[in-house]
Amino acid sequence: MDNKTISNIKSLGIDMIDQAGSGHPGIVLGAAPLIYTVYARHMNINTVDPTWICRDRFVLSAGHGSAMLYATLYLAGFNISLDDLKNFRRVGYKTPGHPEFGHTPGVDMTTGPLGQGIASAVGMAIGEKILENKFKLSDGKPLINYNVYALVGDGDLMEGVSYEACSLAGTLNLDNLIVLYDSNNISLDGDTSNTFTENVIERFNAMGWHTEKVLNGTNVEDIDKAINRSKKSGKPSLIEVKTIIGNGSVNAGKNIVHGKCLSKEDIRSVKRGLDIKDEPFYVDVNNMNKFRNQIVERSARKYELWARNYREFMNNSSEEVIEVFNSFFNPKKIDIINTDFNLDKGIKEATRVTNGKIMTTISKNIHNFIGGSADLSSSTNTYLKDMQDIKDNHYFGKNIWFGVREHSMGSILNGLALSGFKPFGSTFLTFSDYMKPAIRLSALMNLPVNYIFTHDSINIGPDGPTHQPIEQLAMLRSTPNLMVFRPADANELIGCWDVMLNSSGPNALVLSRQDVRTLPSTVPEYVKYGAYPVRKERKQLHGIIIATGTEVFTSLLIAEQLYNEIGLDLRVISMPCQELFLMQQERFKNSLIPGGIKTIVVEAGSSFGWYRFVINEKYLMTIDKFGISGTKGEVENYCNFTFEQIKERIRKLF
Amino acid sequence: MDNKTISNIKSLGIDMIDQAGSGHPGIVLGAAPLIYTVYARHMNINTVDPTWICRDRFVLSAGHGSAMLYATLYLAGFNISLDDLKNFRRVGYKTPGHPEFGHTPGVDMTTGPLGQGIASAVGMAIGEKILENKFKLSDGKPLINYNVYALVGDGDLMEGVSYEACSLAGTLNLDNLIVLYDSNNISLDGDTSNTFTENVIERFNAMGWHTEKVLNGTNVEDIDKAINRSKKSGKPSLIEVKTIIGNGSVNAGKNIVHGKCLSKEDIRSVKRGLDIKDEPFYVDVNNMNKFRNQIVERSARKYELWARNYREFMNNSSEEVIEVFNSFFNPKKIDIINTDFNLDKGIKEATRVTNGKIMTTISKNIHNFIGGSADLSSSTNTYLKDMQDIKDNHYFGKNIWFGVREHSMGSILNGLALSGFKPFGSTFLTFSDYMKPAIRLSALMNLPVNYIFTHDSINIGPDGPTHQPIEQLAMLRSTPNLMVFRPADANELIGCWDVMLNSSGPNALVLSRQDVRTLPSTVPEYVKYGAYPVRKERKQLHGIIIATGTEVFTSLLIAEQLYNEIGLDLRVISMPCQELFLMQQERFKNSLIPGGIKTIVVEAGSSFGWYRFVINEKYLMTIDKFGISGTKGEVENYCNFTFEQIKERIRKLF
Repeated sequence: MDNKTISNIKSLGIDMIDQAGSGHPGIVLGAAPLIYTVYARHMNINTVDPTWICRDRFVLSAGHGSAMLYATLYLAGFNISLDDLKNFRRVGYKTPGHPEFGHTPGVDMTTGPLGQGIASAVGMAIGEKILENKFKLSDGKPLINYNVYALVGDGDLMEGVSYEACSLAGTLNLDNLIVLYDSNNISLDGDTSNTFTENVIERFNAMGWHTEKVLNGTNVEDIDKAINRSKKSGKPSLIEVKTIIGNGSVNAGKNIVHGKCLSKEDIRSVKRGLDIKDEPFYVDVNNMNKFRNQIVERSARKYELWARNYREFMNNSSEEVIEVFNSFFNPKKIDIINTDFNLDKGIKEATRVTNGKIMTTISKNIHNFIGGSADLSSSTNTYLKDMQDIKDNHYFGKNIWFGVREHSMGSILNGLALSGFKPFGSTFLTFSDYMKPAIRLSALMNLPVNYIFTHDSINIGPDGPTHQPIEQLAMLRSTPNLMVFRPADANELIGCWDVMLNSSGPNALVLSRQDVRTLPSTVPEYVKYGAYPVRKERKQLHGIIIATGTEVFTSLLIAEQLYNEIGLDLRVISMPCQELFLMQQERFKNSLIPGGIKTIVVEAGSSFGWYRFVINEKYLMTIDKFGISGTKGEVENYCNFTFEQIKERIRKLF
Repeated sequence: MDNKTISNIKSLGIDMIDQAGSGHPGIVLGAAPLIYTVYARHMNINTVDPTWICRDRFVLSAGHGSAMLYATLYLAGFNISLDDLKNFRRVGYKTPGHPEFGHTPGVDMTTGPLGQGIASAVGMAIGEKILENKFKLSDGKPLINYNVYALVGDGDLMEGVSYEACSLAGTLNLDNLIVLYDSNNISLDGDTSNTFTENVIERFNAMGWHTEKVLNGTNVEDIDKAINRSKKSGKPSLIEVKTIIGNGSVNAGKNIVHGKCLSKEDIRSVKRGLDIKDEPFYVDVNNMNKFRNQIVERSARKYELWARNYREFMNNSSEEVIEVFNSFFNPKKIDIINTDFNLDKGIKEATRVTNGKIMTTISKNIHNFIGGSADLSSSTNTYLKDMQDIKDNHYFGKNIWFGVREHSMGSILNGLALSGFKPFGSTFLTFSDYMKPAIRLSALMNLPVNYIFTHDSINIGPDGPTHQPIEQLAMLRSTPNLMVFRPADANELIGCWDVMLNSSGPNALVLSRQDVRTLPSTVPEYVKYGAYPVRKERKQLHGIIIATGTEVFTSLLIAEQLYNEIGLDLRVISMPCQELFLMQQERFKNSLIPGGIKTIVVEAGSSFGWYRFVINEKYLMTIDKFGISGTKGEVENYCNFTFEQIKERIRKLF
């Protein structure tokens, strides 16, 4: 059966690519024995319950192998039709060009951008460890217990993000993670001898992993044994499997077979070599049924055990424990606005500090709220007090130490969000640059990941331009599906968290390093509208200031002074979330910011994305050049952004 | 002398931090013996000729150690005054919070964002190898010949970008690169046992490096010997030096000493321990002079030899060779517009393909034009035909194989640009995300790096949303100092290269995967204005379409059809570079896009950054959601971006 199924995965895969006119046959012909061995002999899954909590996960980090994955999932019995395979890479079918989470049953993650899959698999493995330790049956055994498999290519392992995540996986000793490395010495442009000559096995040994090498990548037994040894190794495992890219094609072993369709003749010849009928989309039904039975037989045992255990757990656990469980897997609306955070009313402190207090309270109430920082928690204030750390052999905590690894922090958060968590990760706003590929995947998968970015403007001062964000808010706001919050004070912060924790998608919370006063006119409940007035005009509306974050207080003060000094009557609008505001109905938007009224924007960052609110650039009090190292005052002056400068620029507009 | 100078580096460093009220004393007290050993015993530099081509380079990858670096440079005799040290982190002095290239003599690179320094040092080492092999004296010896030193901390080595670059350094066997690893088991948040337990030495061995371990980080002789052995190793070298963070402080060995000022009492006690006068900014002048003499004596030999060799080279080399040399170090205006690229006039092909032809010609004429791709040259078409590859022990070529390492490709390009090159690197536009931190540093240092991003829109089709850029143009355009070019066709491509190669700053060239016709009305010479009309109104100006890239042809066709069908008389403006257009005089801008005329923007990407040209969002034919996997037509339809949809949307505006 092994070879027949492998052949069928291959033949379907190359037929799909041929039909679509594009795709990646090299990995299909090279790595089919790997994916087959995992599904036939190891994956515990239920094709009629594809989101089963306790299923094993499979991440095709080399996402360009989507045809191979879909062919395997089809043969395995997931709800994918032959018609889906025939319409590979077409709108309206379950078989997009790269695997997409939520689009195809059996696909555990969106992949394609290399390195992301393996890095998020590390996040899934951390998630499993926590869940395994959190929910126990009456006999002390874990309710939840699964493995995470990833299939990677040379490209994945060259990417820095995979190194970061795998180094952390070694430190945390994630023995539930098994990585199969499709090692064929070829990448898109050519032989890896040009680019990638390191000893990968030794590198992973140095990172504390268990390693295996399978010399013949067509030998299912050898792959199987390596997986079995890995499961028992007590460490995260890398199995290097030597394969031949495009095996069986006339271009086997060459880079041109990576991403170009095979010729019709080559397809015929490959199929001949596979001893499979030369008929497009031929399915060996008898053999497929055997493959399905093998999966069902193994998985059914685990699924039935799970069902029993789940009933036992639900019957015997305390209400409290069940509530915790449900917060992961059946979340209810979370009320943050009416939560008492014990904040002083008159506080004047950085929003990063207030936020630390808020998060500490949140973490006590919300059980799937976990996270950490890329080695900046002392500055971002996101360490959850009273909560333990997650460490090797100690997965009870809520604080993850990511190390100086912003990028993989983002990818790991994605993996956690895919495992039932509402995770957070923090660093300085300027270093959000390092995380963009991971943030984009949060947005593409629409995962409830909370990015916390502090030190949000030039006002950090002396650290200088490398640490002063300018364009980062624009980068984040221009990313589809991502909500970007920049609260003015403690009140808005509470409102932000209320929206964020009830959202199914990703959020970025942007916080100040410098102190701000809690304002009398800010309102938590209004954050959900994205914008609202914090100062109404007294008599007649002369103009409007839109401000965010720390600039709200500045703008209020300027408005107050200009009213007293020259009678200029300004409305000040706080806009903690531009995206939410733009989603509101036209009537609301027009009533808040009516056309024909001079409108000014004040934000200590790029003008990008703000022109829509103003007539011309004179109305933008923003910063479009890099900052400078100096005192807060010196830097503001250099950026034409002191209180007096802004006030004067506004005065001149009227 | 050793200890006295080390003590003085430390005392000045902590005085600077104390005076500024911020900074990082931990590394100053821990790593001073490392930087001292490099400068006292190894660096060949000339403090009165700080940009000497043949100097050794020093990259403080752990850029937060700036106080230590400035104190060392001051003591070494660079043109930095005691007043500069006293005004650390202030505007107007040579001592910004993090080292800034071009701002401080002796600073070879801007650092601060971790990992970037070491990755760019790899670029510098590649650059040296090429220069060393390119310019020969009559006896066959190299004219240029220097080493690259980098000082890194745990944070640098945790960053994925450092792994990527160091893996490539192993493959290319860059034996001119010596990395000192300040290994103190502490990062900002705490002990590295929480985050970073891998065996770094073994990891670097696996990557083909020579490694050394110095157990006592205060022992200058041991560090010196390790550097000497490294120089002879024939491989890139990592020297792990065990140090104590904040050595001598009451908080020695603790993470709190990383980034917080010492108390006054602690400063006194540290100085007592160092046996140095307790006087702010005390300089042991006698000892400083000895330190300077030691540097001068060693370096003078090399500098004089260089001067002799340089004269010999200039006298004995052919005009052609001297021209090549000058193109690196005394560049002249480059005329691309009048270069014959042998392009067919009537071609219809993707701009990525035309660009490949143009680059091939450019590479023959421009000697410091080198680069490569992050394993996508087969798709980005940037492989320089007729040019050799750069490989281990073979540094004559112009093609660098970066591997699937977008991020370090960017950082390496920065290192090459710092070494006299006009480098390029290519990948898909969507993967520019991976490179943002490196792009930002190109922009901060204003380096002539050319980023080439192909597959520039949803029109790539079946690969789906992970590969379809949406927000990337906004990300790039919002980055200060970066010029973003999106040419409509071959003519504009030539104009883009003319601007790019004569620019001193970074550029991003954004190219299509799909075919475009060379248009009769596009003009290479006009690219430098950023925008110009490609279709003038026939009789009366009814409206304006601004378009870029492949959308210029679409817009022209729509304008033509609407004129014929309903007499709508539109001006079509091609805007290959928004940044350049915005730099033009108001009069020019207003004549091209007069106020009060309905103006439409057509670009297959985010609306971010385009509102400045339109009245409201109805006039934006842009895409603000993620794409989808499908045929070109299906994807365009999903994004409301087919030819007919755009035409109809425009028609309705009038």
